[in-house]
Amino acid sequence: MSVKELQSLIDGEVLTDEASLMLYSYDATPIKIPREKPLCVVLPKSEEDVIKIVSYCYERDIAIFPRGAGSGLTGGAVPIKKGIVVSFERMNRLEIDRENAVAFAQPGVITSHLQDVAESMGFFYPPDPSSYRYSTIGGNVAENAGGPRCFKYGVTREYVLGLNAVIKEGKLLKTGAPVIKDVAGYDLTKFLVGSEGTLGLITGVILKLIPKPQARASALLTFDSIKSLSEATTSIITGGLFPSALEFMDEEALSVVRAFSNAPVPKAKALLLIELDGSPCSLKEQLELLEKIVKPHVSDFKLAIDSSSQQTLWSARKSLGPALARIASGKINEDIVVPRSRLGEFLERLKALSEKYSLKIVTFGHIGDGNLHANILYNKSDPSEELRAETLVDELFELTLSLGGSITGEHGVGLTKRKFLPWQAREVGYNLMLEIKKLFDPKNLFNPGKVFT
Amino acid sequence: MSVKELQSLIDGEVLTDEASLMLYSYDATPIKIPREKPLCVVLPKSEEDVIKIVSYCYERDIAIFPRGAGSGLTGGAVPIKKGIVVSFERMNRLEIDRENAVAFAQPGVITSHLQDVAESMGFFYPPDPSSYRYSTIGGNVAENAGGPRCFKYGVTREYVLGLNAVIKEGKLLKTGAPVIKDVAGYDLTKFLVGSEGTLGLITGVILKLIPKPQARASALLTFDSIKSLSEATTSIITGGLFPSALEFMDEEALSVVRAFSNAPVPKAKALLLIELDGSPCSLKEQLELLEKIVKPHVSDFKLAIDSSSQQTLWSARKSLGPALARIASGKINEDIVVPRSRLGEFLERLKALSEKYSLKIVTFGHIGDGNLHANILYNKSDPSEELRAETLVDELFELTLSLGGSITGEHGVGLTKRKFLPWQAREVGYNLMLEIKKLFDPKNLFNPGKVFT
Repeated sequence: MSVKELQSLIDGEVLTDEASLMLYSYDATPIKIPREKPLCVVLPKSEEDVIKIVSYCYERDIAIFPRGAGSGLTGGAVPIKKGIVVSFERMNRLEIDRENAVAFAQPGVITSHLQDVAESMGFFYPPDPSSYRYSTIGGNVAENAGGPRCFKYGVTREYVLGLNAVIKEGKLLKTGAPVIKDVAGYDLTKFLVGSEGTLGLITGVILKLIPKPQARASALLTFDSIKSLSEATTSIITGGLFPSALEFMDEEALSVVRAFSNAPVPKAKALLLIELDGSPCSLKEQLELLEKIVKPHVSDFKLAIDSSSQQTLWSARKSLGPALARIASGKINEDIVVPRSRLGEFLERLKALSEKYSLKIVTFGHIGDGNLHANILYNKSDPSEELRAETLVDELFELTLSLGGSITGEHGVGLTKRKFLPWQAREVGYNLMLEIKKLFDPKNLFNPGKVFT
Repeated sequence: MSVKELQSLIDGEVLTDEASLMLYSYDATPIKIPREKPLCVVLPKSEEDVIKIVSYCYERDIAIFPRGAGSGLTGGAVPIKKGIVVSFERMNRLEIDRENAVAFAQPGVITSHLQDVAESMGFFYPPDPSSYRYSTIGGNVAENAGGPRCFKYGVTREYVLGLNAVIKEGKLLKTGAPVIKDVAGYDLTKFLVGSEGTLGLITGVILKLIPKPQARASALLTFDSIKSLSEATTSIITGGLFPSALEFMDEEALSVVRAFSNAPVPKAKALLLIELDGSPCSLKEQLELLEKIVKPHVSDFKLAIDSSSQQTLWSARKSLGPALARIASGKINEDIVVPRSRLGEFLERLKALSEKYSLKIVTFGHIGDGNLHANILYNKSDPSEELRAETLVDELFELTLSLGGSITGEHGVGLTKRKFLPWQAREVGYNLMLEIKKLFDPKNLFNPGKVFT
């Protein structure tokens, strides 16, 4: 390929300096993965640019590695063979259509920027991956990003009403409309969400916005056993309460926070942080109901309706990340999913894995979804520990699938989980996925080597 | 094919009597469509039966027309060439998994039965197509059914977490898990929802259940202009209220109800029926807020919090169907979607169509979604009126697409809208859909002739 030729075709910029090539061959994946220095990094400025880039590459068999903010944890944005990186940071136009309650966003819009603008107009865009302050809508859509609020409000896919994508040969696919209901033909919109850049490049999305909740309240519950926590969770959900977050921390997570932060953390087997939202008076009512429902199950509980008491309750959860960084140099944050009913069994068997490999595992997550972040801690400067951690991850995935769960709830398959996908999708499903990939991308140029082995 | 051989393969029943062959060649489609008497009607009892049926048919090139309750309005369940009908009425097992807040349903489960059982356990299954008392989950999933509550709660697709489907050659595809988050590979689950039986036969689904709202309230607002109604709708949504239904009736609809029912209907250009849900005290608070928000826009409003006053408010909307049946023998109920911002323009141009064809059009619908049911009334015994009505529908779809909407929000493409799908999906999208259809069903045996021409 000729960088000069490509540059002459587009308004955007083509980077070839060594620092950029190095920078754009990394994302936030914490473990060792293969990577290849890209031929160049292209920063398109418009959909027309993207069409030209894809046409150029498709004619010349050049692999394309699309990139949002590079905040992914499974190697999704990392180039792994000769090819170009296409990064969307210069395509960050955002428009809110108040009457239709939708946002039109280019892929480079930062998630939190969209949320802030929407909220300033009385709207709410719920998907809240922990990277929301720097991740982009393009990346969120490609990965079908989640977050704590998705238990009540749904994942990114539920908010994508339509999109533009440049697919094979530089063709422009336009799907959907700024409307909530649309059942005309197969839903290509929702199918492209979560396809991890393997089917084409997303150049714009229509996102549903919903009314902003009027107020929020929080509660912190502690439990003497996982069984009590599970029973409480079921009672809450069947008792008429629909929490906007149901965050879980296990015993190890609590002891880490206790040792390495100032957050007030009670002694317990497990902790549940609950966020409720609604009209001001309903929050009082909801907290009263919550108290009544959980009383038989908890060892302790604290309720908070004003903002500063809520912050205190959440401080334990928020200090967990920094605390983990202080006790170990290496951390693999896995995001597996297990049916809630299997939580107790999962945590017991996880403990056995922790003992088998002599590695600390700290687990927290979104218990409403069954989405758990199992953090395997190791010493980065000890190669044998690192190897043990990686082997443990393999067993963790096996355990998850044996309990009827999923190898990924939020982070995607990318590079790091592709060997497990055939097991989860089973032969019939995996083969269909492969056939669909081939249909959309016969030359295997869109993010090759990701999702599939 | 040999009916005897097919019967010997399965536990279910194969019907060949004339009455059944006639009965199962109809659905609820109100206009003239092609139909062909099926070779036989098969009533499988199990997934194993379905595997055998599909294997048998796929080997022998026999077309399969799947059927739920036959309540569809676009000919989706109607056999249109030599082939068999597979009807799922004997596969109606339902299990609720309380701990995981999911239902496992076979396709023949009646929608309202699922809703009732779920509610008795503290859960809520929101999708509420108007056929919910007799439609089946299989049909709802195949069509991605909607309903009034979908503005707040989402359509059927949002509730399908996983499914089993028998695809080409009798292969069993198993997708998903009883968990809310799962981003492992392409989402085949959501893709099969709304595929109208053209990709395979769904034999079981895992459905998400959510906490049951504690209480409901209603409000009836009337307006002097469509502009005021649109402004009120936007103000409600950006003012912190998230109605569980936002039902619209136009001037014609109001006059029909006034003339042919006892429901109390104010004189107005348009009416909006709003349902709100939440905790008991929040309803009071929400109604107060609603009153404040809509006051500058409405000509009149009534609020209702107790159940019998709510029923009175809803009686106008509920009496509309029977009233329509009394004024015309023929009725085409189209379900188009327009962006809310184009509502005024749409209704004006619809009025022009009504005058051009000298046919009454009565419009109501789910205004939150922009999903409108335009009812074209005609005299069934007058062939020229019937023809005019059908020609008008063509122009209605053209109008809808010119406003950036969709030809169907809830009813599906089926047979009656297939000629318009290429226009809406555009060349790139339509060709992708055709290629995907071919990939899943290379012999074109699953509901052939539907969705695509």
